[in-house]
Amino acid sequence: MLIEIDYNSNEALYLQVCNQIIMGIATSRLSEGDELPSVRAMADSIGINMHTVNKAYALLRQEGYVKVDRRRGAVIAVSDDRASALEDLKDHLRIALARSRCKNISCEEVHRLIDEIYGEYDKEQEGSV
Amino acid sequence: MLIEIDYNSNEALYLQVCNQIIMGIATSRLSEGDELPSVRAMADSIGINMHTVNKAYALLRQEGYVKVDRRRGAVIAVSDDRASALEDLKDHLRIALARSRCKNISCEEVHRLIDEIYGEYDKEQEGSV
Repeated sequence: MLIEIDYNSNEALYLQVCNQIIMGIATSRLSEGDELPSVRAMADSIGINMHTVNKAYALLRQEGYVKVDRRRGAVIAVSDDRASALEDLKDHLRIALARSRCKNISCEEVHRLIDEIYGEYDKEQEGSV
Repeated sequence: MLIEIDYNSNEALYLQVCNQIIMGIATSRLSEGDELPSVRAMADSIGINMHTVNKAYALLRQEGYVKVDRRRGAVIAVSDDRASALEDLKDHLRIALARSRCKNISCEEVHRLIDEIYGEYDKEQEGSV
């Protein structure tokens, strides 16, 4: 899977790496048990610091998307914590939707966005299978 | 409006202040033109550093929820940038929903959460009017 860094983005580099890997899992381009490149290889291939890759991998591990295998390195392993993921999503949405509500975005518009985004994932998933 | 700081939260203090003010606008406890306390008064009343309040007010200003009036200080003023707010929300949801999808949260569950959260806002709004 190709990670692309946007140097003009406001998003921190480690978060870009982290989010693209999560996006890869969500769209089945990465599957349970897939090995991620070593920290050095990933840093070299996308031209960023090894510390940045380390930070991304550590966050992925902490959030339950990756586990570190002594021989194989970082491996995709999504932990089974649906309940806490649902709680996290709710906390997250509460503030994101408050922002939208201030800017007069309606509940219907949010529902439409959700369908649009899930549609994008499904399409990418079809492309990757 | 009472700002409550949770010192056990992982969320940065300035973000907590910022988010609670946005939540206040979303639920009509704060309205266009309302004056926020001065940086010093806010810092004193919630027991945090003035720099932290300054950072929160600066972010609120940058994101278009507050403007700074020379005589009245920080005043609620929601800028009319629906289109860019919708874009921001979509970017935000894209990654939040990818996380959920990895953890097997369905599109239907997300729709249900959205209704639940909008329901909470409506209820708080009724309480505050």
